[in-house]
Amino acid sequence: MIKVGIVGGTGFTGVELLRILANHPQVRVEVITSRSEEGIRVADMFPNLRGHYDLAFTVPDVERLAQCDVVFFATPHGVAMSMAPELVARGVRLIDLGADFRIKDVPLWEKWYKLEHTCPDLVEKAVYGLPEVNREAIAGAQLVACAGCYPTAAQLGFLPLLEKGLVDHRRLIADCKSGVSGAGRGASVGSLLCEASESMKAYGVPGHRHLPEIRQGLTLAAGRQVGLTFVPHLTPMIRGIHATLYSVLKDPVDPGLQQLFEERFANEPFVDVMPAGSHPETRSVKGSNVCRISVHRPQQDDTVVVLSVIDNLVKGASGQAVQVMNIMFGLAEDEGLKIVGLMP
Amino acid sequence: MIKVGIVGGTGFTGVELLRILANHPQVRVEVITSRSEEGIRVADMFPNLRGHYDLAFTVPDVERLAQCDVVFFATPHGVAMSMAPELVARGVRLIDLGADFRIKDVPLWEKWYKLEHTCPDLVEKAVYGLPEVNREAIAGAQLVACAGCYPTAAQLGFLPLLEKGLVDHRRLIADCKSGVSGAGRGASVGSLLCEASESMKAYGVPGHRHLPEIRQGLTLAAGRQVGLTFVPHLTPMIRGIHATLYSVLKDPVDPGLQQLFEERFANEPFVDVMPAGSHPETRSVKGSNVCRISVHRPQQDDTVVVLSVIDNLVKGASGQAVQVMNIMFGLAEDEGLKIVGLMP
Amino acid sequence: MIKVGIVGGTGFTGVELLRILANHPQVRVEVITSRSEEGIRVADMFPNLRGHYDLAFTVPDVERLAQCDVVFFATPHGVAMSMAPELVARGVRLIDLGADFRIKDVPLWEKWYKLEHTCPDLVEKAVYGLPEVNREAIAGAQLVACAGCYPTAAQLGFLPLLEKGLVDHRRLIADCKSGVSGAGRGASVGSLLCEASESMKAYGVPGHRHLPEIRQGLTLAAGRQVGLTFVPHLTPMIRGIHATLYSVLKDPVDPGLQQLFEERFANEPFVDVMPAGSHPETRSVKGSNVCRISVHRPQQDDTVVVLSVIDNLVKGASGQAVQVMNIMFGLAEDEGLKIVGLMP
Amino acid sequence: MIKVGIVGGTGFTGVELLRILANHPQVRVEVITSRSEEGIRVADMFPNLRGHYDLAFTVPDVERLAQCDVVFFATPHGVAMSMAPELVARGVRLIDLGADFRIKDVPLWEKWYKLEHTCPDLVEKAVYGLPEVNREAIAGAQLVACAGCYPTAAQLGFLPLLEKGLVDHRRLIADCKSGVSGAGRGASVGSLLCEASESMKAYGVPGHRHLPEIRQGLTLAAGRQVGLTFVPHLTPMIRGIHATLYSVLKDPVDPGLQQLFEERFANEPFVDVMPAGSHPETRSVKGSNVCRISVHRPQQDDTVVVLSVIDNLVKGASGQAVQVMNIMFGLAEDEGLKIVGLMP
Repeated sequence: MIKVGIVGGTGFTGVELLRILANHPQVRVEVITSRSEEGIRVADMFPNLRGHYDLAFTVPDVERLAQCDVVFFATPHGVAMSMAPELVARGVRLIDLGADFRIKDVPLWEKWYKLEHTCPDLVEKAVYGLPEVNREAIAGAQLVACAGCYPTAAQLGFLPLLEKGLVDHRRLIADCKSGVSGAGRGASVGSLLCEASESMKAYGVPGHRHLPEIRQGLTLAAGRQVGLTFVPHLTPMIRGIHATLYSVLKDPVDPGLQQLFEERFANEPFVDVMPAGSHPETRSVKGSNVCRISVHRPQQDDTVVVLSVIDNLVKGASGQAVQVMNIMFGLAEDEGLKIVGLMP
Repeated sequence: MIKVGIVGGTGFTGVELLRILANHPQVRVEVITSRSEEGIRVADMFPNLRGHYDLAFTVPDVERLAQCDVVFFATPHGVAMSMAPELVARGVRLIDLGADFRIKDVPLWEKWYKLEHTCPDLVEKAVYGLPEVNREAIAGAQLVACAGCYPTAAQLGFLPLLEKGLVDHRRLIADCKSGVSGAGRGASVGSLLCEASESMKAYGVPGHRHLPEIRQGLTLAAGRQVGLTFVPHLTPMIRGIHATLYSVLKDPVDPGLQQLFEERFANEPFVDVMPAGSHPETRSVKGSNVCRISVHRPQQDDTVVVLSVIDNLVKGASGQAVQVMNIMFGLAEDEGLKIVGLMP
Repeated sequence: MIKVGIVGGTGFTGVELLRILANHPQVRVEVITSRSEEGIRVADMFPNLRGHYDLAFTVPDVERLAQCDVVFFATPHGVAMSMAPELVARGVRLIDLGADFRIKDVPLWEKWYKLEHTCPDLVEKAVYGLPEVNREAIAGAQLVACAGCYPTAAQLGFLPLLEKGLVDHRRLIADCKSGVSGAGRGASVGSLLCEASESMKAYGVPGHRHLPEIRQGLTLAAGRQVGLTFVPHLTPMIRGIHATLYSVLKDPVDPGLQQLFEERFANEPFVDVMPAGSHPETRSVKGSNVCRISVHRPQQDDTVVVLSVIDNLVKGASGQAVQVMNIMFGLAEDEGLKIVGLMP
Repeated sequence: MIKVGIVGGTGFTGVELLRILANHPQVRVEVITSRSEEGIRVADMFPNLRGHYDLAFTVPDVERLAQCDVVFFATPHGVAMSMAPELVARGVRLIDLGADFRIKDVPLWEKWYKLEHTCPDLVEKAVYGLPEVNREAIAGAQLVACAGCYPTAAQLGFLPLLEKGLVDHRRLIADCKSGVSGAGRGASVGSLLCEASESMKAYGVPGHRHLPEIRQGLTLAAGRQVGLTFVPHLTPMIRGIHATLYSVLKDPVDPGLQQLFEERFANEPFVDVMPAGSHPETRSVKGSNVCRISVHRPQQDDTVVVLSVIDNLVKGASGQAVQVMNIMFGLAEDEGLKIVGLMP
């Protein structure tokens, strides 16, 4: 049994980790931390877990966490980097669902996150946790920085085009729509049902923290600096990201887009390329770790439209983290992740 | 491997059966029928099932169904009774998620369902599929009529009180709220998002088909004819039933309600009595087979208020059917049903 | 032009007052207060008001408010009573949308609201603002305590039965369902879209502050102390209250319930008794000041079921307050309130 | 009083016309037609209209309609063109909310709508009903083809840029999100609450009927054939369109985008340019006739992002139709349209 610790168990990604791990046959959650809820049983706070966990929240304690085989950080940025150095030194494997180790360019990270990075050396050492790109490196990593939610949906959709150099890398547009759970479980007026339901809006158009992360990933895929416009939207639903991705073909001759996508992801257990002409729905992946993609070339014009959907809390966060753990520990990659989307 | 057939695979309870059975280690779905979708792959119709099933819909055919070990009917009333006699004669075990065999009083059934019953003898033979009441009979049954959605939530909440004779059996009130999936997947104006969201309404107040079913179950529990007012409401959500149950204590001395409920369901794998003072939320059972209950006595008055929540498509339909199947085939009762509710 | 002041303009009832008054031909909003948003234009905070108001929030100031003809308190309990005495002394007319002056029994109020009342004499002077009961008193009042949201829906539905003494006054049940806006605009985890949508739950079953208010109103109507069980539920929608009201006929002979209700409300501009057999939907009153009611006697049993729907922010709060103002100032009672419900 | 007829009164745009006209002081609805609901009172079908209309649906009859001053067609395409010639000949003014007269290129219309056009001469005569472009022509028109919902949101957002020739007209992208009411009130599985809520999807990516309409309008504005990619999305809400519009500046020097937009719409009663940096929400225009716009240039790159929101049933349909009627009859343009958005 792999001994698991979770730092930050009261947010949506924390409780989602618990949901997934409850049916994972090879792990046991030993520690789950929360400063504010110390002593409360997780099942008292999240009644969907009643009957699945007896565990109570404890104050974060490096000593206890160091006895785990792997520690997940389901925390806001800044937390993981404060505890990572000591845990790494003790040989624990770390999986950060937050943003502390995603951006390799530390000054760029500091600019976007408005915080000084306290362990830049670990940033270098960290592996970016997008298995479809980095599987081998993840297998040997001690510290993995899981890809963010928008970045996962956007990168998986753009990768086949950029890796083959088929589209103009200077003019990429990612119009992304996210459910409200992406905003976290903190009490904020903007996430109230009365403010966020029955409405649609863009936000962060001048700049959003996932922009540099997506740009970094796409630049690696393209082999050159990409130009990207990223517009996130708040959508009146709990879960799901729908990325609508626009790029322009360099050559008007059809490069066989459908086949390209199917081949690129043929061996990926969690990327499902739909038949030509399809429109994936976010609900088809609700609760599941799948990224479902379709590719279009409307009106046979030179603009390619890729549609890419994930559950932001699963493939965009906790499911991806478990997939990463499976890879790190040599388990079947889909262990604990054979969850079927909840539809309707 | 238990060979499973499903009649009526295009409704919500059909696709929900497929979702649950996809991760059931001891069954294989061999046949799934639909007249209208013959030849269509189930995963093309319900993309959440992509990667889990290769099966395509076929026209209902008794010959093929007879080769299954068990056949589920996920059909409107009237269908199961048309095929049951032959399948029963062939030794197949049947689990009806519909209403054909629930009401023992056949003329009463015919009055409420406005249809002549074509096999009243099978009604007599059928076992009512509420495991918390009928576990032993289910184990030996060939034909089980699964309890309806409202009837499951209402009966589980009233049972402890009626079995002990603690409340006035003549004045029971079940004020029930259901998500829209209870109305099925048929195209109807009343179930459109634009008609049913952002609104609440009662329906069927003069009379609803679940009234005689609930009354039958409560009458058996009380050992005498009960009086029941049942008011269902359409609630703007996909899944979930919240039953708010009112009854009046015969004796003002506190009978130890909390303990009574805890003891009644102590050995039930799918009934969770919450701590005193709790208010169960339907979302805590979203996608799971659990019925979560709490019991209150507001203002120490003589009215008892029981709150009982289920997912209408799981414990109220397809999950209960799988639980019944597990019992019929001597499997662990929770096999394939260890699903954690999806929260948020 | 009637000069209007509004204390507490940043909550849902405040912005709703502004929405309604924007098209009221005989008033002008002169002052709107908020401690936290001083200097912010209301239209910057609530963009639906852009083009309708130039007004900015100011810190509450008795001097400025005293120059208004009428001041609305759209505030949590405790605020109105702190400012009312001075404003009353200055001759301003006050309409409190909050709870400070609703309960005539001051110790009872203090018990439920856990606060010492600072002006019990004004409680005595205050008129309870439910026009269907108190129209004449409202016309002559200086201080009106508007009826709460649940109390409005519940009282209007029970009144005809209790005034005529037709039902057992000791066993009244009000099973009420409210949209989330009833919880206010404060940032709280429980009101997040991710916590409150796609779910249904009861709350406050042991005791809710509207219980004594409803009981007081029904007791007045019945002419004797009533017994009431009140269970509120949080419903996944923004606006709307659906009250499902249960009572028991004293005499099994049909008293002509439909006619009774139609006659009781024949001259009421904002109570709409629907045809026999109807099921009112909350969406039919979304944004409008109407209370829509139907009355049932299911299965010809002796239980009467009344269905009563309102928009909690309009007839349950700001619309009722404007109706009260119209009465107080001798205007047409529906001035500014001819709003048609937004459907769909 | 202007005598109004409405053909097709049972869809969402029909009932929305009734809602708006109920408070329009200078019109009276004389006729409302529906083949399927003949004899039913509109207020029985749409209870929000109870107390506002006594009118009942009648079978469409040219003779009766010809006695109206103006007839609105709130019908699917194909209906208006079948009745228009005779009504035009009789001197009635016509406002078509459908698509029959929007596209000037009749063969193009026939290709997209898969129908032979039966009165191409009236297409030529018809004025395109987007007041912000065509106000004068509308004033003198007998037949107006109201702009569609997506086309209104997209055109208003792109117009200032194209009229001034500031952006590359060959690479326009309109990523549009619509509430489900855009799909109409017909019973279809895809519009069920259980299918459309809690999910996001694109649709019609290969080609949508609003593409040629938007392209026609933008081409007129640009003075040359534009290239446009249009991707509509189904969003889990009732009302609202959010258009996110992408184009590329020809010249990297800032052209003063904010000022450009403010000046373009300075005299428009129903276009609200928000302050720089704003993100309009669809809920801010819920039930109102306003189009709210903001313009961004993210990261000072050369891509311009315009955000444009409307209520698809108001400014995208029935409100615009009333605005058009006001212009045609020389009334104040905002008569009956001073409705404040319903928020929350």
